[in-house]
Amino acid sequence: MKATFVKDLTPNSPVRSTFLVQSKECKTASNGAPYLDLNLQDLTGAIPAKLWDYSERTTPPFDADDVIAVEGQVENYRGAAQIRIRRITLCPPEEVNLFDYLPRTQGDPEEMYRELLGRIEVMSAGPLRDLMTSVLEDPEMARKFKLAPAATSYHHAYLGGLLEHVLALITLADAVGEHYPWLQRDLVVAGLILHDIGKTEELTFNGGFRYTTRGQLVGHINIGLEIVQEKIREIPGFPPPLKDQLEHIILAHHGKLEFGSPKEPLFAEALVVHYLDDLDSKLEAMRQQYAKDRNQPGEWTARNPALKRELYKVE
Amino acid sequence: MKATFVKDLTPNSPVRSTFLVQSKECKTASNGAPYLDLNLQDLTGAIPAKLWDYSERTTPPFDADDVIAVEGQVENYRGAAQIRIRRITLCPPEEVNLFDYLPRTQGDPEEMYRELLGRIEVMSAGPLRDLMTSVLEDPEMARKFKLAPAATSYHHAYLGGLLEHVLALITLADAVGEHYPWLQRDLVVAGLILHDIGKTEELTFNGGFRYTTRGQLVGHINIGLEIVQEKIREIPGFPPPLKDQLEHIILAHHGKLEFGSPKEPLFAEALVVHYLDDLDSKLEAMRQQYAKDRNQPGEWTARNPALKRELYKVE
Amino acid sequence: MKATFVKDLTPNSPVRSTFLVQSKECKTASNGAPYLDLNLQDLTGAIPAKLWDYSERTTPPFDADDVIAVEGQVENYRGAAQIRIRRITLCPPEEVNLFDYLPRTQGDPEEMYRELLGRIEVMSAGPLRDLMTSVLEDPEMARKFKLAPAATSYHHAYLGGLLEHVLALITLADAVGEHYPWLQRDLVVAGLILHDIGKTEELTFNGGFRYTTRGQLVGHINIGLEIVQEKIREIPGFPPPLKDQLEHIILAHHGKLEFGSPKEPLFAEALVVHYLDDLDSKLEAMRQQYAKDRNQPGEWTARNPALKRELYKVE
Amino acid sequence: MKATFVKDLTPNSPVRSTFLVQSKECKTASNGAPYLDLNLQDLTGAIPAKLWDYSERTTPPFDADDVIAVEGQVENYRGAAQIRIRRITLCPPEEVNLFDYLPRTQGDPEEMYRELLGRIEVMSAGPLRDLMTSVLEDPEMARKFKLAPAATSYHHAYLGGLLEHVLALITLADAVGEHYPWLQRDLVVAGLILHDIGKTEELTFNGGFRYTTRGQLVGHINIGLEIVQEKIREIPGFPPPLKDQLEHIILAHHGKLEFGSPKEPLFAEALVVHYLDDLDSKLEAMRQQYAKDRNQPGEWTARNPALKRELYKVE
Amino acid sequence: MKATFVKDLTPNSPVRSTFLVQSKECKTASNGAPYLDLNLQDLTGAIPAKLWDYSERTTPPFDADDVIAVEGQVENYRGAAQIRIRRITLCPPEEVNLFDYLPRTQGDPEEMYRELLGRIEVMSAGPLRDLMTSVLEDPEMARKFKLAPAATSYHHAYLGGLLEHVLALITLADAVGEHYPWLQRDLVVAGLILHDIGKTEELTFNGGFRYTTRGQLVGHINIGLEIVQEKIREIPGFPPPLKDQLEHIILAHHGKLEFGSPKEPLFAEALVVHYLDDLDSKLEAMRQQYAKDRNQPGEWTARNPALKRELYKVE
Amino acid sequence: MKATFVKDLTPNSPVRSTFLVQSKECKTASNGAPYLDLNLQDLTGAIPAKLWDYSERTTPPFDADDVIAVEGQVENYRGAAQIRIRRITLCPPEEVNLFDYLPRTQGDPEEMYRELLGRIEVMSAGPLRDLMTSVLEDPEMARKFKLAPAATSYHHAYLGGLLEHVLALITLADAVGEHYPWLQRDLVVAGLILHDIGKTEELTFNGGFRYTTRGQLVGHINIGLEIVQEKIREIPGFPPPLKDQLEHIILAHHGKLEFGSPKEPLFAEALVVHYLDDLDSKLEAMRQQYAKDRNQPGEWTARNPALKRELYKVE
Repeated sequence: MKATFVKDLTPNSPVRSTFLVQSKECKTASNGAPYLDLNLQDLTGAIPAKLWDYSERTTPPFDADDVIAVEGQVENYRGAAQIRIRRITLCPPEEVNLFDYLPRTQGDPEEMYRELLGRIEVMSAGPLRDLMTSVLEDPEMARKFKLAPAATSYHHAYLGGLLEHVLALITLADAVGEHYPWLQRDLVVAGLILHDIGKTEELTFNGGFRYTTRGQLVGHINIGLEIVQEKIREIPGFPPPLKDQLEHIILAHHGKLEFGSPKEPLFAEALVVHYLDDLDSKLEAMRQQYAKDRNQPGEWTARNPALKRELYKVE
Repeated sequence: MKATFVKDLTPNSPVRSTFLVQSKECKTASNGAPYLDLNLQDLTGAIPAKLWDYSERTTPPFDADDVIAVEGQVENYRGAAQIRIRRITLCPPEEVNLFDYLPRTQGDPEEMYRELLGRIEVMSAGPLRDLMTSVLEDPEMARKFKLAPAATSYHHAYLGGLLEHVLALITLADAVGEHYPWLQRDLVVAGLILHDIGKTEELTFNGGFRYTTRGQLVGHINIGLEIVQEKIREIPGFPPPLKDQLEHIILAHHGKLEFGSPKEPLFAEALVVHYLDDLDSKLEAMRQQYAKDRNQPGEWTARNPALKRELYKVE
Repeated sequence: MKATFVKDLTPNSPVRSTFLVQSKECKTASNGAPYLDLNLQDLTGAIPAKLWDYSERTTPPFDADDVIAVEGQVENYRGAAQIRIRRITLCPPEEVNLFDYLPRTQGDPEEMYRELLGRIEVMSAGPLRDLMTSVLEDPEMARKFKLAPAATSYHHAYLGGLLEHVLALITLADAVGEHYPWLQRDLVVAGLILHDIGKTEELTFNGGFRYTTRGQLVGHINIGLEIVQEKIREIPGFPPPLKDQLEHIILAHHGKLEFGSPKEPLFAEALVVHYLDDLDSKLEAMRQQYAKDRNQPGEWTARNPALKRELYKVE
Repeated sequence: MKATFVKDLTPNSPVRSTFLVQSKECKTASNGAPYLDLNLQDLTGAIPAKLWDYSERTTPPFDADDVIAVEGQVENYRGAAQIRIRRITLCPPEEVNLFDYLPRTQGDPEEMYRELLGRIEVMSAGPLRDLMTSVLEDPEMARKFKLAPAATSYHHAYLGGLLEHVLALITLADAVGEHYPWLQRDLVVAGLILHDIGKTEELTFNGGFRYTTRGQLVGHINIGLEIVQEKIREIPGFPPPLKDQLEHIILAHHGKLEFGSPKEPLFAEALVVHYLDDLDSKLEAMRQQYAKDRNQPGEWTARNPALKRELYKVE
Repeated sequence: MKATFVKDLTPNSPVRSTFLVQSKECKTASNGAPYLDLNLQDLTGAIPAKLWDYSERTTPPFDADDVIAVEGQVENYRGAAQIRIRRITLCPPEEVNLFDYLPRTQGDPEEMYRELLGRIEVMSAGPLRDLMTSVLEDPEMARKFKLAPAATSYHHAYLGGLLEHVLALITLADAVGEHYPWLQRDLVVAGLILHDIGKTEELTFNGGFRYTTRGQLVGHINIGLEIVQEKIREIPGFPPPLKDQLEHIILAHHGKLEFGSPKEPLFAEALVVHYLDDLDSKLEAMRQQYAKDRNQPGEWTARNPALKRELYKVE
Repeated sequence: MKATFVKDLTPNSPVRSTFLVQSKECKTASNGAPYLDLNLQDLTGAIPAKLWDYSERTTPPFDADDVIAVEGQVENYRGAAQIRIRRITLCPPEEVNLFDYLPRTQGDPEEMYRELLGRIEVMSAGPLRDLMTSVLEDPEMARKFKLAPAATSYHHAYLGGLLEHVLALITLADAVGEHYPWLQRDLVVAGLILHDIGKTEELTFNGGFRYTTRGQLVGHINIGLEIVQEKIREIPGFPPPLKDQLEHIILAHHGKLEFGSPKEPLFAEALVVHYLDDLDSKLEAMRQQYAKDRNQPGEWTARNPALKRELYKVE
């Protein structure tokens, strides 16, 4: 467990804690000796660090995105805090709790995930609920679903963001479902749970949030399709039309071909998934922009890159 | 009050009821005498009618879209019912209840309107609620708001359709508002009530549903703006920023310039009004298409002109 | 085996042969007796047929797209040939050779398929060739690949059209590969073989060429992806990057998002597959148009629906 | 009245004049004392200024965009002129003639306005001329109409620019009207006078030229509509069709939905207003670019941001 | 010279006049004899005609778009006039005045052409005026320029339409030039004269107005370019930059790439040519639509195919 | 002939060679004396150079893009090589071999040109081959065709690039022609040779690769048209339809209006020219990007400006 956080480090005091390596460079000091120039981060901030007289023999190999344990001294360098490292050891990945190091949801992912599981328990018994159970109770999927952000930037770009986004959508869908009772509500909810499931492999989230090569070549829509198809294959007698419907919902959730959906929504439940997803993404992007600029002077925020406009602050 | 409906007319029996004139043509019979060839309609259907030996002296002048009282006999002409008219009198417009003659909402407009008024009563006291009250309690506006369709075709194209659409949106907005508590819910609701208010003058709905010339030249967005501005002028001290916000919501509710909104939504409440409006319109267009084609064979509906696609029937 | 073809039927002679049912209607004759009004077709043309005094007891049930054996007499009805049927029996599907009944490639599908298999034999040994072998030697896939058209209309819209299209592309690719030796030629060829493989399930081709419901909801790109993924799963140690590359080629082969590809080509081999596919489809559409209009007067063909233009006939 | 202009200031001489405050910052000198760092401007240029030993007690409060009277000394600081201020007093806004401080039309606004009034005097008597008189003789409107620029940049972006633009358009319209005698020339001229009238509230022009919040939320088209509607309300018996026509001209003057016009021109006079407006704006943008780059070497100007292209200099 | 016009033909009287052949078909009468079924037209209308007992030996060969001299009798056939032809002779093309047979400008082409020549006489002496003279005094060009329509439909689609359009543009340009004295007015006028000159070869106008094959393959912009280049080649020392400018004006006169201009206007004179051309074409299309629908009931015209909208009739 | 290349210059040794002037500035040294600050380049790189104590009397005038002969000394200035010039003379253009100074094709232009001439020798005798011969054997055209790049950047942006591109296309066309024997292969080859021939005047390539003013105003498509028309004029009896076809191929080779082609391909040979041109340009742009980034870490190249995407490196 992580001992001390960046925001609590004070100059002229010893430090012994774990950090995520943001960047690592091997440089040469003016005396000709090699040294490591690092940037370390955790959930609360980032701090530069130096390991003087660096030797590959005495320091274990590590890279950006690794978590390392550091012993050393916090110093004041040109008015800013900086760590002079004495010793580095590597943290075994299985002991690392990424939530200590990266931006994260405000909620408790475990609790949120239980909420999600609870929601599928009230589905009608049948192949759709079986599929949902099979997907969400897969331990590896559960692990990733709790971690994945919903995007690399713009909205829900933090650990647990995907889970938070999906829960929000289900709540909305239940409200909308009240109003349009002719909709197949279970199908909408299943579609919402699955629509972005490919993001668990489209994005990396053990360090910076970036696209994987598979993410760029294939994309989360089609990665998601393969995940769902694998789970369906394990359910004997899963109705082929239901499979087609779920696949269509995933394929069509961006709404239009030019936004990367190879099919436009062809039935009402697919349309609802698309609209709610779009609405929640945009509102969340707005909320973040307002939160960031609330205390800036003026009636307008800075330009929001996702919405490509400045936002008016309704006071 | 209307006596007999088209669907209850049976050949070889007298008729004495009121109908809306769908079309009217003066023709010449084979014996050289002029006669009137009419199509009459009410809520339940349409029926052809003839007035033989027509003379302008004995029959009052009337036109398509007028409601007339007819006395005559239902006959069987080539296998179909037709009225042989003996006498026509004109119904004074103030005695006509259009809901007897045109496609209409399933609900009771009076009750629906009370529901709408009830919703603004729970708004916070202040200029926004004052404006809503002023708009909705204007008797002429109330009369039109209960009658107006929300479109000439595609969705809510029936008497009371606008009112039904707005109530649906408010219900959705309240649900959505639960989920995004940072939204100014009263502003969203006010925006929803006002967004299509110009339709009361953009469309005619005393006969067929068509665009007025003012509707085509100016459009419901700008007609609505003028209506709102007139009401605001009567409220002393109405805050100018609030006026700007309401105007913006109305201007931006089509979401994009190419859909006729001269501004894109620049704050969250305007965005919500746009999304909910769009969602409800599209779902309602889908619902109607499904209702129409449910009993047709095949897994697909006919092509829906609003959505420009065939719809898959999720069984 | 089919006995007589439509083009060889002459009035006033008996007929005993098999035909595909294009359409079937049960009508009532002027004497009140039910009769069947059919349109029958084979590769060489279509002919109307009547079964008078039809009874469900004596005639086996069948539908449009079935192949039936017919005994009867060819008659002359208002100047055109027509069959008066005496007896109908059903052909067991396994005995039907669709190539006798539907528009078809000029080539011999069996031979063309051997050519295709021959082409993959010259691939470098390795997982790519293993995958190609696994896909093409699957008996059910082989059966469909020989039958499937490449489109419902416009180009290669006949039995064996897909196979013909793919062979054409491979020939082109080998020529292009000579010129750009840095391209991974095996990857291009594999991409060409797989790019439209989903058409075997997107389209029906046992009667008219139409889209299946799965075809409309999911599309041949994603159907193809699932087929390939299933085959890859059976090959131990298939390299994940190679899987991503093949999936990308399939996903990107329409070239642009607005043409239904959720990804644009991101490497050279994917670009080549897209260009060659596009070129061959368009040239083939042109060739058909020229063939059809060659003998019409004028320097221009009729408007080609695929290319949305009239074509100039270079003499 | 303004005493001395920036272009006439020379180092090492006293100064006593009024300037517009471009920017104002309170800084701390190396001796720890606060001082004001200002940029001052007038029509002829800009100059930095310092007020050392600044105290809120002895200097009246002011902001950017205010006009202040300054007493001090012009100094030479690192090769450039700069004012060392001794005393600041505030100019009462009613004594400020903005034309002394901001970029302005070459013409005399009073005379140009008289020209505009002269043009409406030759209109046929009737409601249209009454409306024009009512709008242009409103003293507040007259004041703003003489000041407003036609845009924040690109073309006519200077005091009096709107007036200059409108006069140019009327001259063009009269010429065009000669050629198309079937056009309603008064309607065209009225449309030209009103089309951009909302710019008087869309833009601020008492300092830098910027959008007001109302300008961004509502836009000059709809602000203009409200202004016109208010004036029409005061004219008894103003014909509703004429009102619709004028509103349509204003709404449609950008020509296309994607340029912010919610309606496309639906009659000839509206089309003419759109074309002339577009032509004059673009030619004026070109003229400015040529004027700026005439003496630069090369046959091409720099890229013009309004036209998004470099311009060729016809000799 | 043409003797009698279609509008003056009355049944039961002889006819001896010339007509343009609209269509010609050789049919077989019920008695087995061949006859010619013609449609004949002139400026005032069209009339069917029959030549019974047709023989190729006694009737000279002719085709649609030829002008023939006809002798015969006007008859009444089923309530409509029709010519029973006795004798057909061919009119030598050099004796045909097409203005007698096809829709035409109201003006006198010869006079209009003199007006055009007069306009170039007031140009400054120099290569530009030399070029204009060389183009317009070329007898073959003069002949075609007086005949050519400006389009096959929509606007100026009649003989002399191109000339009328160009003269209108020059008048406008002179008016516009007054207002923007910095424009090179001669260059604008030259550009206007040349911009559509390729229409003299893009369209056929000796019968119906259609595109030539060269027109479809190359287009009037590039045909015009070649015509101009040929004339320039004959003028020694024509300045190359001036040649580039004229070519650019022709190339850019459609304003945008998607309207078929391979270059957008890159200097002011090219922009003016584009705007005036566009304005005159659209106004002329409107004028025709108004003229056609003026006496129809309602405030709106039928849909105008060029402008893709219905037009409001400003009364 | 060039003596020494930039890559072979070493500090502290004399230099006597020719270089292309990349940039030239006259500056003032700290001692007040003028000096020339040059950047010199050849095929192998660039190097700064100084001529101290510069006088217009002793140094001949020259400009950027000229080739000069330099005598001087290579020095080490702040760690980088630089030439201290003693004497400059001008190289007569006719003695300059541009291939020594600018990026160039790997091939031998003379040999490549012979290859091109060889290809037209196998064309069928007739006007098409006559035209090709006439174009390619024109000495000035031959000179430029061997030098011209195919673009200013992105692909084939080096001396001989156009020739290399055209040869590549002909090879592809011959391969494609094998597969579609119904294509008029000579017409395709002629179209490929001519399609970009206007680039010889659209671009400058005696120094940096830039657009000429004529290139910007008229463009290579229309410049090419004029070149071809001139040559055709010299061939008696050249068939007009063939002229139209060639012109169409040139006009349509960008494929779409929005890419600057005023016509879309209207026959098969024009379509093939467009596709091959597009394919070769894109593949060549990819090949260059891969070559540049092959040794960079990561699976992706930098963003390619021509293709507007990062490219995946297939290993």
